[in-house]
Amino acid sequence: MIKVVIIGAGNVATHLYRTFSETEDVAILQVYNRNPEHLKFVKEPEKRISDLQNLENADVYLIAIKDEAIPEFVLEMPETDGILAHTSGSQPMNILNKFENFGVFYPLQTFSKNKQIDFKNIPVCLEANTKANFHLLKKLAEKIAENTYEVNSEQRKALHLSAVFVNNFTNHMFAMASEYCRKNELPFDILRPLIRETVDKIESLDPIDAQTGPALRNDKKTIQMHLEMLDENQKKIYTILTESIQKLHGKKL
Amino acid sequence: MIKVVIIGAGNVATHLYRTFSETEDVAILQVYNRNPEHLKFVKEPEKRISDLQNLENADVYLIAIKDEAIPEFVLEMPETDGILAHTSGSQPMNILNKFENFGVFYPLQTFSKNKQIDFKNIPVCLEANTKANFHLLKKLAEKIAENTYEVNSEQRKALHLSAVFVNNFTNHMFAMASEYCRKNELPFDILRPLIRETVDKIESLDPIDAQTGPALRNDKKTIQMHLEMLDENQKKIYTILTESIQKLHGKKL
Repeated sequence: MIKVVIIGAGNVATHLYRTFSETEDVAILQVYNRNPEHLKFVKEPEKRISDLQNLENADVYLIAIKDEAIPEFVLEMPETDGILAHTSGSQPMNILNKFENFGVFYPLQTFSKNKQIDFKNIPVCLEANTKANFHLLKKLAEKIAENTYEVNSEQRKALHLSAVFVNNFTNHMFAMASEYCRKNELPFDILRPLIRETVDKIESLDPIDAQTGPALRNDKKTIQMHLEMLDENQKKIYTILTESIQKLHGKKL
Repeated sequence: MIKVVIIGAGNVATHLYRTFSETEDVAILQVYNRNPEHLKFVKEPEKRISDLQNLENADVYLIAIKDEAIPEFVLEMPETDGILAHTSGSQPMNILNKFENFGVFYPLQTFSKNKQIDFKNIPVCLEANTKANFHLLKKLAEKIAENTYEVNSEQRKALHLSAVFVNNFTNHMFAMASEYCRKNELPFDILRPLIRETVDKIESLDPIDAQTGPALRNDKKTIQMHLEMLDENQKKIYTILTESIQKLHGKKL
């Protein structure tokens, strides 16, 4: 039985709580949040704590709070034999090095409070200050996820940055198209099969080989026509991405 | 039985040929391409033609050639009673108005030669110069696709532009991340579940509401850290997309 305390009450904390609650061989002892108001998602009231002095001894303390709140938490957190592991993509492991046992437990996924998620398919990126600690974090991760990776702090930072491109910026492409459709009285739904196929395609192809469109063809006429249809902000983005596609493929405008 | 001739030998022509070949109540009479070498995908040699003088009388001639080749084809194409319909997203219907019967049959999807595609889920955008012609094109489209839309030339142009954002530019986000992972010796595979979830999320949410990330949170520290990790081209794109996300959500850097 791995005994776990969860620190935090945001999206990641909520999802970790839900998933581990349903996992054999894992016991959630407590969920800590400074503001107890936000702990209502914890079904068992006795497990909600908002004072670090009431912490029980756990094997792993999973820190799922905002990056900028981590340093202050580290100051306040009492010494413990358990492993302190944060869940942040961008913070180095050593932010926790005042403790004896520490590491990182980073699930590479986007979490929304109201959307159920299956941890099974989420890659969990792990790092720890000792082999034994790594082993325990890996054991814990494998209880819920099929794929775990050993990823050092530098690599994790690079992954987190890549995630901004494939998740945040990709979503913004969808949002821009959605706005554009709205303005032109077109249903965004009509684009959904294309979005699906865009992603299906890269299951079998490297995205660099999956590229199509006027930028790749250097179809100047279509590019020009499109630019005339866009507002200043859209135009800037269209131009810079067209140039970037051409650069990546060794072409020139 | 709707009699169809396909004009062209590219990705769209190939997919239309394959799909209509397997469709009841549709007969492909011929496939035309100026260069007969490219017609090998047509299983029946007698249906391959490379001289417009040998065209048979069809109900619909589907023009699936490059946009820039359409004007010359229009000049060469003999008069006919059938409907001439192009399959281009960006060309106006009236490019075909020298004919008596004309329209547009635009499947909104990205086609690759080596990837099978199920037309059933592809939205087909239709336009025609008369009600009767529209009716016949719609009947033809419904033989292969579940969703057909009446879309005028202006709207189609806007859709085609939106498709550049959700397909070409989105794919470029994946390609940039793939490059970045390669340089940092990280497997791109680790990002696939996140990509899947990015798309799954907008099945139930408007993409504007699905936005997350440092730009939306205006997390200046993370943004600054990311910028320091990128080369000039990547930095430019990161900055402009971050600003655009903040603009769309009424925030300021």
